[in-house]
Amino acid sequence: MIDNSCLKNMANSIRFLAVDAINKSNSGHPGMPLGMADVATVLFAEYIKLNPNAPRWFDRDRFVLSAGHGSMLLYSLLFLMGYKDISIDDIKNFRQFGSKTAGHPEFGHLDAIDMTTGPLGQGISSAVGMAVAERILNARFGDNLCNHYTYVIAGDGCLMEGISEEAASLAGHLNLRKLIVFWDNNNITIDGTVDKASSTNQLLRFQAMGWNTLDIDGHDFSQIRKAIETAQKSDKPTLISCRTTIGFGAPNKAGTSKCHGSPLGEEETALMRKNLNWNYAPFELPQETLSAWRNSQTRNQALYDAWLVAAQKSGKDFQDFISGKLPKNWNDGLSKLKNDAIQEKTKVATRKASEMCLKAIVPAIPQIVGGSADLAASNLTFVEGLKTITKNDYYGNNIMYGIREHAMGAIMNGLALHGGVIPYGGTFFVFSDYMRPSMRLAALMGIRVIYVLTHDSIGVGEDGPTHQPIEHLASYRAMPNILTFRPCDIVETAEAWEIALSEEHRPSILALSRQNLPLLRLENSTNLSAKGAYVISPAQKKRQATIIATGSEVSIAIDAQKQLLNDGIDVAVVSMPCMELFEEQSLNYQLDVLGNAPVISIEAASTFGWNRFAQRTIGIDTFGASAPASELYNYFGINTENLVNEVKGILNKA
Amino acid sequence: MIDNSCLKNMANSIRFLAVDAINKSNSGHPGMPLGMADVATVLFAEYIKLNPNAPRWFDRDRFVLSAGHGSMLLYSLLFLMGYKDISIDDIKNFRQFGSKTAGHPEFGHLDAIDMTTGPLGQGISSAVGMAVAERILNARFGDNLCNHYTYVIAGDGCLMEGISEEAASLAGHLNLRKLIVFWDNNNITIDGTVDKASSTNQLLRFQAMGWNTLDIDGHDFSQIRKAIETAQKSDKPTLISCRTTIGFGAPNKAGTSKCHGSPLGEEETALMRKNLNWNYAPFELPQETLSAWRNSQTRNQALYDAWLVAAQKSGKDFQDFISGKLPKNWNDGLSKLKNDAIQEKTKVATRKASEMCLKAIVPAIPQIVGGSADLAASNLTFVEGLKTITKNDYYGNNIMYGIREHAMGAIMNGLALHGGVIPYGGTFFVFSDYMRPSMRLAALMGIRVIYVLTHDSIGVGEDGPTHQPIEHLASYRAMPNILTFRPCDIVETAEAWEIALSEEHRPSILALSRQNLPLLRLENSTNLSAKGAYVISPAQKKRQATIIATGSEVSIAIDAQKQLLNDGIDVAVVSMPCMELFEEQSLNYQLDVLGNAPVISIEAASTFGWNRFAQRTIGIDTFGASAPASELYNYFGINTENLVNEVKGILNKA
Repeated sequence: MIDNSCLKNMANSIRFLAVDAINKSNSGHPGMPLGMADVATVLFAEYIKLNPNAPRWFDRDRFVLSAGHGSMLLYSLLFLMGYKDISIDDIKNFRQFGSKTAGHPEFGHLDAIDMTTGPLGQGISSAVGMAVAERILNARFGDNLCNHYTYVIAGDGCLMEGISEEAASLAGHLNLRKLIVFWDNNNITIDGTVDKASSTNQLLRFQAMGWNTLDIDGHDFSQIRKAIETAQKSDKPTLISCRTTIGFGAPNKAGTSKCHGSPLGEEETALMRKNLNWNYAPFELPQETLSAWRNSQTRNQALYDAWLVAAQKSGKDFQDFISGKLPKNWNDGLSKLKNDAIQEKTKVATRKASEMCLKAIVPAIPQIVGGSADLAASNLTFVEGLKTITKNDYYGNNIMYGIREHAMGAIMNGLALHGGVIPYGGTFFVFSDYMRPSMRLAALMGIRVIYVLTHDSIGVGEDGPTHQPIEHLASYRAMPNILTFRPCDIVETAEAWEIALSEEHRPSILALSRQNLPLLRLENSTNLSAKGAYVISPAQKKRQATIIATGSEVSIAIDAQKQLLNDGIDVAVVSMPCMELFEEQSLNYQLDVLGNAPVISIEAASTFGWNRFAQRTIGIDTFGASAPASELYNYFGINTENLVNEVKGILNKA
Repeated sequence: MIDNSCLKNMANSIRFLAVDAINKSNSGHPGMPLGMADVATVLFAEYIKLNPNAPRWFDRDRFVLSAGHGSMLLYSLLFLMGYKDISIDDIKNFRQFGSKTAGHPEFGHLDAIDMTTGPLGQGISSAVGMAVAERILNARFGDNLCNHYTYVIAGDGCLMEGISEEAASLAGHLNLRKLIVFWDNNNITIDGTVDKASSTNQLLRFQAMGWNTLDIDGHDFSQIRKAIETAQKSDKPTLISCRTTIGFGAPNKAGTSKCHGSPLGEEETALMRKNLNWNYAPFELPQETLSAWRNSQTRNQALYDAWLVAAQKSGKDFQDFISGKLPKNWNDGLSKLKNDAIQEKTKVATRKASEMCLKAIVPAIPQIVGGSADLAASNLTFVEGLKTITKNDYYGNNIMYGIREHAMGAIMNGLALHGGVIPYGGTFFVFSDYMRPSMRLAALMGIRVIYVLTHDSIGVGEDGPTHQPIEHLASYRAMPNILTFRPCDIVETAEAWEIALSEEHRPSILALSRQNLPLLRLENSTNLSAKGAYVISPAQKKRQATIIATGSEVSIAIDAQKQLLNDGIDVAVVSMPCMELFEEQSLNYQLDVLGNAPVISIEAASTFGWNRFAQRTIGIDTFGASAPASELYNYFGINTENLVNEVKGILNKA
């Protein structure tokens, strides 16, 4: 236990590093680092299980700064604790181009940043995923190998965002007792005091969701200490309301929104130095305070050493789990599935094909953790070999997310970030909108999360336009670093699963049909979907036009090809299961696939973006309608007849 | 008060219409109509203030079927009550092409459908907006003109979705006592019993948010009656937990998820007829039950007549409010603003320009209701003339939405749907992802909602990639029926506001810069933004290339134009503030603007979609970074130098 005067200096060293860095960059958010420095000091100096010499230690406690704008709190902590990849120069380069110390914490910039935060509510929700991963692996490998806390600092905004309700509700349901959330209860948001926009009794709300709640003075070291110890022993997840003063120490701006998102400035900083009796120049630190912080480098060394021994003893199984690598021969089952499908000309909906893939994948990849947002029966995401985890039994590999798409997205991020598990989760394609902010974060962080998004078009039929995606394919194709697959049959579905599982550094979407689709791929020697697009049905002699199609429209294209040939028009059909991968191919390959003849695209979705490849585009640029699917395909002109006419039109042979 | 045996038959008439229609269409969701028929019967037969002969009566109670999959409950009710625009044939055509009785209730298909529902959580959240609109207009016009309840039927899914937390929290904060939510507490979701995915004590949670809560047997008429009366008298919003049996009456499927989303089928329906002693053929109704229902046609006639008199007496002010029409000369202030700006060469950020517009708009349009999701100081959405409503004073025209973007989106939908108010709301462009599902519904319903989305590019600077939109412009351009404006200066900003306010049947996005932009438009005789794109700076003699730019990149394009002219290359610059409107222009106009020369586009965002117009595209197809904005513009090549080089490249003059 560190004495209070030392703790006070340790907290103030966070405060002044933060204020000075923010002043220097003339940009940033001092209010939160100043307000939460005391809580963070007690947590990081005395309790958290981290080892700055082994920043990616698998059994470390996880820490998520859900209120990511307070990034200087985290950077200060990591520098003070002696992490090797952050220097005082990095602190001085806060928010500058190429710096590790970005405006908000960015996963990958520093080893100890457990996730990218900034969009409010995402951190606390992904932390639920980390805490789930911890329990799943604990159940499988025991306390010696996986037994750690997940700590979160969240602000008022995080608690107001609906995503945190979804995630906290699930955390309560699963009784994630090793999840501890510090709520920076400073009663200030950007537009003023919290009570201008909310009257919710947050403690009561979290109690209603099955949480343990505590309420402390966030500037009282002994209360902070006691709260952490109580939370660690709790049999439920814990929310600690830390009553704090935003901008603590800044004499004129503390307690107001003025210090939330703007530098304090020279004058106020000088007054703050006086106020806190801090007689050091900017970026200067008293040696004894720094030394106290640097004890962090050895504080958990014994625990780390013991873990290392246990991990080495544990054998290959655990090593494989935490490596993130797929087991050898993991895709043998998928290969067999493809061969069989070609033999048997299997005609199934691609959602059904995905289920068949999962039957091969789940037994082969023990790290898989599946789930669905209350649509398992429609997404076909639950297969033999999966077992749903409960609060009484975490030994499993499936999560019933409930009707909480957004939390599912964030929790999958947390699972992937924690490591040791590989998450996939299902919902209707159209409702992926609900988890879009989490999907964007997955793409930004570059993590392996797989979205099984079924009912991918007007093929939904009677449920109507609220349930029929139109703009979704385009909207994800425009998003950086995420792969959008729309396979045309069972073979391409298996290929998409293969690629998605192999892509360790980006998320993948599998957009899958509700309706049956015929087998179109007749050979299986290489994963052609990995090229993004390929000629699935070549012209007979000389290509007069090229039809590009995806998913359920590829069979329409092949039908049209036959009809056109009867009329003396020789066209090639290109299947493009993944536009993004196609754009990564060599120009030669792309030109080879696209050919020299006129190109026409057909997809039962927005035509937006297709002009990159096609001179003429067939698609749907309005919302859908409620009717049997086949009628809708005809009404919207997504059929052979219209395609034949359009090809003839483009060739002036109508 | 109707006697219980009659009520029972009235409820069963709902049940069998629903079951028979769903069987006939072989598609639909019987579980909820069967389960909630008793609650709905008491509400609609005895309490709700509706007039089937005046379905759009402004002071009617609003009803939102948040669990929209139970659409047959609503269609049955409306047919039974004698609404003129729904016949037994419409019931029989449930879910068929072109039918008014779509799979989910679609706003506009029937006069009495108050909103489109289906995406869970949206209905209950938009109902909060309707209840806010009611209170705002009540405060302004008094009880005689606007004084009605907003009723909601919500399912477990609606309560699990995070959006409902956001909206319910705000409803509690604003103490919307005329909002009454019936929770169909049947403990069943698609994947099984609710307790598989949630252990939340919903009543306690709603109490924590400041709601009154009641708990009743949803099949007991007297309990239902008492609950409605208690709720009507409550001084808070009320959640009524209606314990019901999903699929009530179906002997084998009731109480299970089997009856949620599939037709009961002939056999089970026959058993249900026996079980409920219903000796009528499909779609046949006992005359006395139908007569009891048809009393609805006159039940509120006296109230309606009194309201009509009051409305006629009230004078033009109230009429104008409810008409949705803008006042005469509403845009005089905007015209003056544009003229002054041109005179003074006003250089401001377009978010600032928007604030200047609002200063002209707010006093001119009393129906305006502004707001922001805790970013008023950044979005610059709060101007003189706005007054924030509170639970003690609804006489105002601004809502502090808190950090609840999704609820803001849904509440704005509710405001617009209620009528009498015209909503706009602000957040950062990148966080529009959080409210995307509500924006999609606004587009689908075709309602006037205006999104003020500031910080529209890497121009955000230091806050980094989590705060920098990349794919957002493309993602909204791909969405049907929504206008995306990205104005280049104050004049285009004013034009965008003019158009957005004039568009009564679609929502508009204003994507606005954080950073200052020079005045580029030098004349103001017509609203050129209304054409979507136009030549803002023509070639001197012969156009050798055309540069299309939007927003902050238009000034870069004009700088490049000058440099190119120095090098002997004569190009035209097209400003395209709204791609969607440009695509609605005549082909001649489009060709005229685009010209015959090579076209190059520049936009600090994803290039996705630009190939529709441009052979070469300059943009950003990765995530952004944290650094001062000007450095980012250079790093990503969104600058004059790169544009000049690319134009030369496309002309082979590099």
